[in-house]
Amino acid sequence: MDRTPASPVNALMAAIEGTGRDERRGGYSRPVFSTAELDLREWFTAEALRRGLAVETDRNGILWAWWDLPGASSAGTTVSSAEPERRGALVTGSHLDSVPGGGAFDGPLGVASALAAVDLLQAREKDGGLTRNRALAVAVFPEEEGSRFGVACLGSRLLTGAIDPARALSLRDADGNTFADVARAHGLAPDLMGRDDAALSRIGDFVELHVEQGRGLNTEEFTDAAGRGPAVAVGGSVLGHGRWRFGITGQGNHAGTTLMADRADPMVAAAQLIVAVRQAAAAQPGARATVGRLEPIPGGTNVIASRVDLWLDVRHPEDAVTAALVEKIHGQAQRIAAMEGSTVRLTEESFSGTVSFDAALQRSLSHSVALTVPGAPVLATGAGHDAGVLASRVPTGMLFVRNPSGISHSPEEYVEDSDAEAGVTALADALQDLL
Amino acid sequence: MDRTPASPVNALMAAIEGTGRDERRGGYSRPVFSTAELDLREWFTAEALRRGLAVETDRNGILWAWWDLPGASSAGTTVSSAEPERRGALVTGSHLDSVPGGGAFDGPLGVASALAAVDLLQAREKDGGLTRNRALAVAVFPEEEGSRFGVACLGSRLLTGAIDPARALSLRDADGNTFADVARAHGLAPDLMGRDDAALSRIGDFVELHVEQGRGLNTEEFTDAAGRGPAVAVGGSVLGHGRWRFGITGQGNHAGTTLMADRADPMVAAAQLIVAVRQAAAAQPGARATVGRLEPIPGGTNVIASRVDLWLDVRHPEDAVTAALVEKIHGQAQRIAAMEGSTVRLTEESFSGTVSFDAALQRSLSHSVALTVPGAPVLATGAGHDAGVLASRVPTGMLFVRNPSGISHSPEEYVEDSDAEAGVTALADALQDLL
Repeated sequence: MDRTPASPVNALMAAIEGTGRDERRGGYSRPVFSTAELDLREWFTAEALRRGLAVETDRNGILWAWWDLPGASSAGTTVSSAEPERRGALVTGSHLDSVPGGGAFDGPLGVASALAAVDLLQAREKDGGLTRNRALAVAVFPEEEGSRFGVACLGSRLLTGAIDPARALSLRDADGNTFADVARAHGLAPDLMGRDDAALSRIGDFVELHVEQGRGLNTEEFTDAAGRGPAVAVGGSVLGHGRWRFGITGQGNHAGTTLMADRADPMVAAAQLIVAVRQAAAAQPGARATVGRLEPIPGGTNVIASRVDLWLDVRHPEDAVTAALVEKIHGQAQRIAAMEGSTVRLTEESFSGTVSFDAALQRSLSHSVALTVPGAPVLATGAGHDAGVLASRVPTGMLFVRNPSGISHSPEEYVEDSDAEAGVTALADALQDLL
Repeated sequence: MDRTPASPVNALMAAIEGTGRDERRGGYSRPVFSTAELDLREWFTAEALRRGLAVETDRNGILWAWWDLPGASSAGTTVSSAEPERRGALVTGSHLDSVPGGGAFDGPLGVASALAAVDLLQAREKDGGLTRNRALAVAVFPEEEGSRFGVACLGSRLLTGAIDPARALSLRDADGNTFADVARAHGLAPDLMGRDDAALSRIGDFVELHVEQGRGLNTEEFTDAAGRGPAVAVGGSVLGHGRWRFGITGQGNHAGTTLMADRADPMVAAAQLIVAVRQAAAAQPGARATVGRLEPIPGGTNVIASRVDLWLDVRHPEDAVTAALVEKIHGQAQRIAAMEGSTVRLTEESFSGTVSFDAALQRSLSHSVALTVPGAPVLATGAGHDAGVLASRVPTGMLFVRNPSGISHSPEEYVEDSDAEAGVTALADALQDLL
């Protein structure tokens, strides 16, 4: 079959399409500091060095690839200090880790598009079509998904001080390893992790390109006569979201010898809770509530579980509504558990309020993107992003690339090549206008 | 703290109390062919050899320790063929594997009691108080719990032909290893596994001692004025039981960007199904139905699952009722899944009909046990046992040792020392009367 020669962004994506495939779940499993994610970091480092960028890993495990202003001496080398000329730089990038069994684009598309945009900008500079007033960096944030240690956007939370480093370091993965131990094993110094004002001072503006994770670009409001939506949208806000863990404790026992009337089965309580979560979220306009992870302990077929842990993800544009919804669900969990002779314990693992992106940056992005995608809409996103965490400290904005099905966090996540190319052009134009 | 010097059975149990502890779940995790289960097999072999028994592993992985009739030449050595004088022998024993996070007694108590009963019988023979007419063997059956490969009593099912060897060999553990590969890695020849009539011909009668897994010995019918039930019961029947796997497939997606109305979430369908299982079982007198194992795929907190696998354990004295209950639950699963835009697939993993133990052997056991435990009752058990599988081919019987709480398949499973000692005496007397 003939294929159109790959454009730079699609060639970059093709180069990593074999990394971290998950044969059992389908799609990709690239948890932070796994072989797959480390391979992607190496790939990124090699691609950045090939473009003459200076690569460094900061003390929170964030990768930075610097395209310094002409005259800076560090190009092509690995440096570890923030030179004065990097203050207030323009930063773009995303993440390379994935959820278990995730798609190819969530994270890597933003990184590959940033590298491809650097290609365009370097060519324009060479042709005299670009004059830069500040440095540009491509950043890669670790554990954006929180799929290994449970807290999403862990790298950007550490950088901005949004999470207490002691708490972050004590987080454990499914094998019981602490984040401190895993970070140390990968060359980081746990004692040095946490809020990094010097690193933050280098970010003048942050622009993240990401695959759109819903059907926002495919709604009737935006589609053309052929039913096709625009290739790119500008981010307006990030929906507030959080994660809560429910531990329901009953009485473990034998599945064959324990009469139905004698049971205190936390799995039955968990099931009733999941049904209640669906009902509560469906009754609250704009809310989304999900239980996607559940672990019965001990988890034997012929064993009534002694405990069930389940994780609740809740999102709503108004933070007070999110809090009230979780409180309502907690009350229901307590009633349900009591009726099953069980107890419930609720732990908040993370919460991030709704974030509106910087208005001036958003206007600038809309203006630049319109050159490639006339009428590119402004979209709110239901997904969390490092850009949402960084927004508390620096001006941030986002670009979303069309996802025909809207499916994400799934092997079926998809981006058409031509949309990815439009995304790179729009990103390059936006960065040029900000440089 | 002062402790009463341990009796032989309690000393045997104490010697293995550190093997296979599960720090995360509590209790013990000793899946078949794990380091823990292999350590227990080694312990058993050493204890058997110390008693002058001849130890062999048959082609289905069942361990046999033979106390041959005087004059047989194989004592103290490892042999692999069934000598004529072993035909129709008296066999006792149980299993050493456990459910995940199980108790100390389920399985090992029957093995340790068999070894301690051999001690008593050998002492009686030495004193001239025992004349034997046939050989005695202690057997250890692998994968009784089915906690690694999903089918309970796998060793006795292979031995009796109750499972097609091709199916058994293709079973996979949670890491994806086939039973064939794991068996081969532990020195067995997969091609030789399956029904073994020569081995079966050596079993004249089989008597299994086991911790009672319900509160049958603590019901008012049997307890004395102090509320204490008898130490030992004789088995009457094994409740019919089976395992079914439901695979519910929906649409994996992002937990933040997918509107509640747009979801096809198999976790919600699974939750409704678990509630339906509880209701259906509670409405059917004598039935027990349990979901103790559930796996969402991919299992991320911020991911709507694409598929949920859950395992259903159903038991009822009448096999037709069990079948009807599973059919009813299957119908409900289909309706529930359809309402959630999902599909469901049902697979029967195993089924064993209700078994009544051999009447003559049961009378003999009741007569012998009454010497130690006057008025020892006859109990039906809701738990499955290798004795129940063997009953289709040879006369089998069981003894149950009192479990004060009735809790089993849990770290809280418990047997008092004095009850364990009464169990050994009752088993030795029963074996003596049958030798």
